[in-house]
Amino acid sequence: MSQAVSSPLYAAIDLGSNSFHMLVVRHIDGSVQTMAKIKRKVRLAAGLDEHNALSLEAMQRGWDCLSLFAERLQDIPKENIRIVGTATLRTATNVEKFLEKANQILGYDIEVICGEEEAATIYKGVAHTSGGSGRRLVVDIGGASTELIIGEGFEAKALTSLKMGCVTWLERHFKDRQLTSTNFNNAIQAAKDTLQPILEQYTQIGWDVCVGASGTVQALQEIMLAQGMDEVITLAKLKRLQKQAMRAEHLEELEIEGLTLERALVFPSGLSILIAIFELLEIDSMTLAGGALREGLVYEMVEELKQDDIRARTIASVQSRYQIDTSYGDQVASMAAKLLRQCQQDWINEEQGHILLDTAAKLHEIGLTIDFKKGGEHNAYLLQNLDLPGYTRAQKHLLGEVARRYRDQLTSLPEQHAISGTSAKRVLRLLRVAVLLSHRRNPDLEPAFTLSSDGDKLTLSIDAQWLEANPLTAAELEIEANRQTDIGWPLNVIAK
Amino acid sequence: MSQAVSSPLYAAIDLGSNSFHMLVVRHIDGSVQTMAKIKRKVRLAAGLDEHNALSLEAMQRGWDCLSLFAERLQDIPKENIRIVGTATLRTATNVEKFLEKANQILGYDIEVICGEEEAATIYKGVAHTSGGSGRRLVVDIGGASTELIIGEGFEAKALTSLKMGCVTWLERHFKDRQLTSTNFNNAIQAAKDTLQPILEQYTQIGWDVCVGASGTVQALQEIMLAQGMDEVITLAKLKRLQKQAMRAEHLEELEIEGLTLERALVFPSGLSILIAIFELLEIDSMTLAGGALREGLVYEMVEELKQDDIRARTIASVQSRYQIDTSYGDQVASMAAKLLRQCQQDWINEEQGHILLDTAAKLHEIGLTIDFKKGGEHNAYLLQNLDLPGYTRAQKHLLGEVARRYRDQLTSLPEQHAISGTSAKRVLRLLRVAVLLSHRRNPDLEPAFTLSSDGDKLTLSIDAQWLEANPLTAAELEIEANRQTDIGWPLNVIAK
Repeated sequence: MSQAVSSPLYAAIDLGSNSFHMLVVRHIDGSVQTMAKIKRKVRLAAGLDEHNALSLEAMQRGWDCLSLFAERLQDIPKENIRIVGTATLRTATNVEKFLEKANQILGYDIEVICGEEEAATIYKGVAHTSGGSGRRLVVDIGGASTELIIGEGFEAKALTSLKMGCVTWLERHFKDRQLTSTNFNNAIQAAKDTLQPILEQYTQIGWDVCVGASGTVQALQEIMLAQGMDEVITLAKLKRLQKQAMRAEHLEELEIEGLTLERALVFPSGLSILIAIFELLEIDSMTLAGGALREGLVYEMVEELKQDDIRARTIASVQSRYQIDTSYGDQVASMAAKLLRQCQQDWINEEQGHILLDTAAKLHEIGLTIDFKKGGEHNAYLLQNLDLPGYTRAQKHLLGEVARRYRDQLTSLPEQHAISGTSAKRVLRLLRVAVLLSHRRNPDLEPAFTLSSDGDKLTLSIDAQWLEANPLTAAELEIEANRQTDIGWPLNVIAK
Repeated sequence: MSQAVSSPLYAAIDLGSNSFHMLVVRHIDGSVQTMAKIKRKVRLAAGLDEHNALSLEAMQRGWDCLSLFAERLQDIPKENIRIVGTATLRTATNVEKFLEKANQILGYDIEVICGEEEAATIYKGVAHTSGGSGRRLVVDIGGASTELIIGEGFEAKALTSLKMGCVTWLERHFKDRQLTSTNFNNAIQAAKDTLQPILEQYTQIGWDVCVGASGTVQALQEIMLAQGMDEVITLAKLKRLQKQAMRAEHLEELEIEGLTLERALVFPSGLSILIAIFELLEIDSMTLAGGALREGLVYEMVEELKQDDIRARTIASVQSRYQIDTSYGDQVASMAAKLLRQCQQDWINEEQGHILLDTAAKLHEIGLTIDFKKGGEHNAYLLQNLDLPGYTRAQKHLLGEVARRYRDQLTSLPEQHAISGTSAKRVLRLLRVAVLLSHRRNPDLEPAFTLSSDGDKLTLSIDAQWLEANPLTAAELEIEANRQTDIGWPLNVIAK
């Protein structure tokens, strides 16, 4: 039996303009596991007066919060702790007074990081938790600053921190708490003016995908999910939400399905900034990042997690943590790829579909860690609930639904938003056939076969001798052909 | 990152009188993980003629099944395979003919084991999957034989195999397929006659607990579960089921909620045998074993799993497989025990309650393996679905419900059948307090405290200085006192 684990803890604390956050994690086998999250709404930015001095009340709220954090910090190795202050502490003229007592309470020094360093750390947090290749635009709207970064892999190519945030924009453009088009227009225009200086540089560098971090984008996701939309943020959806918001006249009457009370106050101001960014930078679509500043701080400390292909890192970590038979997973994945190559070109026409087929093949036995009985159910529960850096929520959902159905009775897939319904169905079909053809758990014992596709119609020809020598698999393939055909996905298995 | 796992497979095949079963497992970190189960209803016993010769048709059904099994066997190391034949093959006069071809098909030799060896192997399967100490009576009703074993730990003290089974009793006493009281009475009386010779010896050795293996007891559990009963089998419940069965006149009309079609045919005959055993041996109650013959074969091959305390083995394996912080789990468990010792004697008055408190404390962070978010839900899902040798289904259910509620919002426990409602509630209360007092994750930093109980009323006095130095925990204890009190479980926390 392997040694029981008691791995060291890491803590990242972020003294933001709206809230203070503490994140405690462990590093387990290629993954960062969250052990505790503590959050207090300190509203530091609200305590700045017209001369940018922090009020004593605001400082006291901050110190009270830090004395709670301090209790937990004592038990974490010094080198595993990072505590950073951001926009409001950068701005406060009397920051030294706040820091002196704060450092004393914590027993550790707070680093007030500059905007560029904040942007760089956010980028690391995103890079470590997002999949895919290509150039990435990252947008993080904070309480008093907004960071925009363009990067590729782990390397940032442009870093900007702008003095605009959902708290400052609330106070500046929604001071009367009215959700009028005038207020929205002013807020959006002011955000565009703030963005203008970086427009040329960013447009010139360009990007392939856009990722949003922070509370505003998180809130958007929750709303979209609650309202049954898919997870991709577009300008059209943002405009629709602005309209929904304007149905309430006053901020305190704001009611949008899926919007939590906690996020409501700064939602219109954050939304305005995001609309400005979409319009000015002509962004098509944005997805939610799996991490930002705090995750960046953590991943900076756990350097060994720096691996270029985040999804490969995630798969390897999950395989190891759940004792999945890796060589068998790889065998099924390469069988699935072999099957796919023999189909018509673009039979699964999204690259995401290929990635999800590969991932499902590698992880489809994860549920066995719980029990063989209801293994498919356990697959779905784990894949849909695990933190899987590199996969979005919709992708995890589809992975779970596909892996739920990898064997036995076949039912059609529920609605999902990761890829087209046709592609999702085809991912499932190929996974099931790949599993059957790999049953011997040894690549040398796979049959010779050919697969051809004609739209949804599949014909699988298998070496007759092999079928005779493998009567169990032969029987299962026959059942599988009936199952797929019965559900309306014609599959013909023939001996040749 | 640790090495990915591709551990060798083991196979156990059991050529029973009713069905042939193949079980394929891996040995992972102190646990046996099921990889595949294949079962075919061969009805070998039904193929015996009046001279105990197997018909060619029955043999052919067996050979056909074995050629399916053979496909999978090829890829498993020879030393990891056990194939045994039981009662019908012991009885068949022309067994050599069957074996010759069967061995050739399998490529391995079938061992036809004698009744005593079958009983010994069943006992090993039970001992490796059942918790608790004391002397144990094991009952396994097969198709053509019934094994009764008394043992303690891994040592069997009495081994008996009787020529009576649910298939033979069906043919002998329910040949007309009528569910009359005459048929039942005859079946029960005949079973008692068969049992009579061992009565004195077994009564003299005696036992503390009684465990049932095999399909009949499994079917009973499923019925009791479906009908909302608890998991303990008693004579009263067996009699009630006999009455339910007799509502149908003919066997083919038998309809009992929770009874699957597959098990229906041999249910009345198996029930008759079980009633006879309960009545003659004066058994109070019986629970379902986690394993029997096939599990015994597997555990004989994986010798390193032989550990006296099955529950301790299970806990250690789960802690390791899910990377639980073991020292912290132990800390919470000893804190919970310390709290319990300070309460009135018998505050939790079942030993099972103490065991479940200890287990919940050691495993309450298992859900973090999935995600911190909804950690309590993940605890419940895992603990209720994992195969946990040494814990019954009802115990796993309660463990999950307690661990679901180990932190944050407190809700009352649902109905459960493992221990009394009062004890279950108290297990949960102590777990929650133990978790809070261990928050610093270091036994040296626990507070000095005293706990006193007055019925449901708890008073926890904690060192005032400690509370001052640990404001987060102090705040959480205050919230916890309110939560427990609000739900009707008075908890008073005072500084002293």
